[in-house]
Amino acid sequence: MKKVAVVGVGETNFSGPQDKTEVELFAEAAMEAITESNLKPEDIKALFIGNVLGDFSEGQGMVQAFAAENIGCHHVPANKYEGACASASMAIRDAFIWVASGFYDIVLAGGVERAATMGTGLATRTFAMFSDARYEYPSGITFPAVFAMLTHLYADTYGIPLEKLREQMAKVSIQSYRHGSVNPRAQFFGKNADMTVEKVLGSFMVSSPLTLHDCCPFSDGAAAVVLASEEVAKKLTGKPVYITGVGQSSSGPLCNQSDYLPRIRAREISSRRAYDMAGVTPQDIDLCELHDCFSIASLIAAESLGFFEFGKAGEAWEKGEADIGGRVAINPSGGLKSKGHPIGATGAGQVYEVTRQLRGEVEPERQVEGARTGLTDTLGGDGGTLVNIILQRGW
Amino acid sequence: MKKVAVVGVGETNFSGPQDKTEVELFAEAAMEAITESNLKPEDIKALFIGNVLGDFSEGQGMVQAFAAENIGCHHVPANKYEGACASASMAIRDAFIWVASGFYDIVLAGGVERAATMGTGLATRTFAMFSDARYEYPSGITFPAVFAMLTHLYADTYGIPLEKLREQMAKVSIQSYRHGSVNPRAQFFGKNADMTVEKVLGSFMVSSPLTLHDCCPFSDGAAAVVLASEEVAKKLTGKPVYITGVGQSSSGPLCNQSDYLPRIRAREISSRRAYDMAGVTPQDIDLCELHDCFSIASLIAAESLGFFEFGKAGEAWEKGEADIGGRVAINPSGGLKSKGHPIGATGAGQVYEVTRQLRGEVEPERQVEGARTGLTDTLGGDGGTLVNIILQRGW
Repeated sequence: MKKVAVVGVGETNFSGPQDKTEVELFAEAAMEAITESNLKPEDIKALFIGNVLGDFSEGQGMVQAFAAENIGCHHVPANKYEGACASASMAIRDAFIWVASGFYDIVLAGGVERAATMGTGLATRTFAMFSDARYEYPSGITFPAVFAMLTHLYADTYGIPLEKLREQMAKVSIQSYRHGSVNPRAQFFGKNADMTVEKVLGSFMVSSPLTLHDCCPFSDGAAAVVLASEEVAKKLTGKPVYITGVGQSSSGPLCNQSDYLPRIRAREISSRRAYDMAGVTPQDIDLCELHDCFSIASLIAAESLGFFEFGKAGEAWEKGEADIGGRVAINPSGGLKSKGHPIGATGAGQVYEVTRQLRGEVEPERQVEGARTGLTDTLGGDGGTLVNIILQRGW
Repeated sequence: MKKVAVVGVGETNFSGPQDKTEVELFAEAAMEAITESNLKPEDIKALFIGNVLGDFSEGQGMVQAFAAENIGCHHVPANKYEGACASASMAIRDAFIWVASGFYDIVLAGGVERAATMGTGLATRTFAMFSDARYEYPSGITFPAVFAMLTHLYADTYGIPLEKLREQMAKVSIQSYRHGSVNPRAQFFGKNADMTVEKVLGSFMVSSPLTLHDCCPFSDGAAAVVLASEEVAKKLTGKPVYITGVGQSSSGPLCNQSDYLPRIRAREISSRRAYDMAGVTPQDIDLCELHDCFSIASLIAAESLGFFEFGKAGEAWEKGEADIGGRVAINPSGGLKSKGHPIGATGAGQVYEVTRQLRGEVEPERQVEGARTGLTDTLGGDGGTLVNIILQRGW
């Protein structure tokens, strides 16, 4: 198989409700990625988009076909992927294999969503469709409730007093806010840099013990990346970032995962596949954009990805081991918590961030100096879909 | 790249409203395909599903994850594709490249839908989302209206009196009903074998000049296929059917296609890609399952696929050239018109039919004798997505 490089990336601001259609949002990110790649739309051989709720948010199905034409990629094969919040990562992974196989030399992959424009009511209701509709959804629990229960289970499993755990979780949010506050593309750019444990614990209770500041926002946004074969990449850029490992896994209803919780088995399988393919270990990862839909989700993810011992991630955050300059820089973009979470675009936003970090191009306050290897992690539903992608500097 | 074979196929009955969930329906088709392949669920390395409206029909997003676990394919990568009515073909094409690349040796691909269970009202309303939501949907036209207008345009373009064209279209439906009436999996199995031109023309007017019998039904159903590398296929079956060509293309809003209509440009590009990859011409195709969502759609498709001159397909149907025993057997399954149209599953149903035809396994009344090469054709929306797959006998 051929080596596959990211040769260009693009992203819109991640934001609250805004007026652009998904086709327009995607075009903004896509054209940035294509232009940065020193390419033209007609050079793109295929298009892969993650999009979850476009049919609900604006009554547009099959958005990829309209998006392809809109940016001038006329008549390319255009696929849409739905794997809940992991949709864009799934699209990038499939784009990877089309290039790796040698079938296409240049493809565009990404995602787009207007989750904020939907409004909290419809967003909450439609998000719940990505739990199991037979057993989980009818019981009335939504994702905040799932992660609230996982918080209690985590505290119990590892013998951490709940109030202690809540403080550790608050520090996860504080770190994410700090990173996002200096990321111009982040939904909370310029905001919440002064967050404190007291403010997190004292904010609106969403689902006990998760407060507002433990939860990521609903966001609008799009992100896109251009993948190319090694031969083509070398002609286009002096800074190719290679995708050296991809992993994906799935699980059924949460109730069937109970023997393993609070660990997410699909993540451990998925990340193992990615590490093995890249021939690296968790110790080699300099930065990781992981799926922090809730603060507790960061702890659970960081442990399953192999960065910290089980039950010890909270301590790691407290000691700065998960921060820039620490053992592994977690979510230097601000993550879902502060950069934002346009669900069908989130995974592409992670690849955008990791690529720019490896190139050394982000704002100095949040640049991971000398980073050579990065990991992305996206979770769809409550463990239903997991995708991990490993990116490495190619120069 | 490796040669990729279909080593097993499965399908539910295509039907009107029924009580099984999409997870249950898919399991029925998938287990038939896996069992026929002499495999077990744990042999499957990845799962690719087309599904369009599961979030509307039963409030279930990310159905592929739950479907994977349900059939015992624990923790496999599981993708869902949405390209309107072409979704399952898209899933199979992606499954193809994962096997062709050598990454996986055995994958399961297919589709599932409960379009009939949704009821005509919700189905009509949600189907319209696969036209362009900015320009086309707000004008109030649904797909029957699109194809009604194409009928008028076809008559005008090729100088065929509308009443003459309507008679030719009626004969398309009559042929499809006849084939479907002897296909036990078809929605209209045992029905409508006695259809006449008078009955078609005299039936309920849906969108002038299209009557009820010019239109395909809404259907529930699922279909699945197991793809394997050549080396694996040779161990599993004495009758491997190889996928020798795949093609896909896209278009934007119908209003942007107007210079080309009633021809569908994306189909001509897609089928050309498939023919070129397989190294065959339209003259080599023994049977074709094409996207006859409306009777006029059969004429348009058969011409763009290269079987008949533009404007001459109606005559071909009248002369039996599109029938079993004619130049090319079109829709020996009964097609969308009579076999049924569970939208996210339709393309997989086509591959099911072509595979069984090439093996010589279908009912004698509708078997295409000695068939060696078959083509599938699925259209998503009004030209937004086109996928073609060429299958050939491997023994």
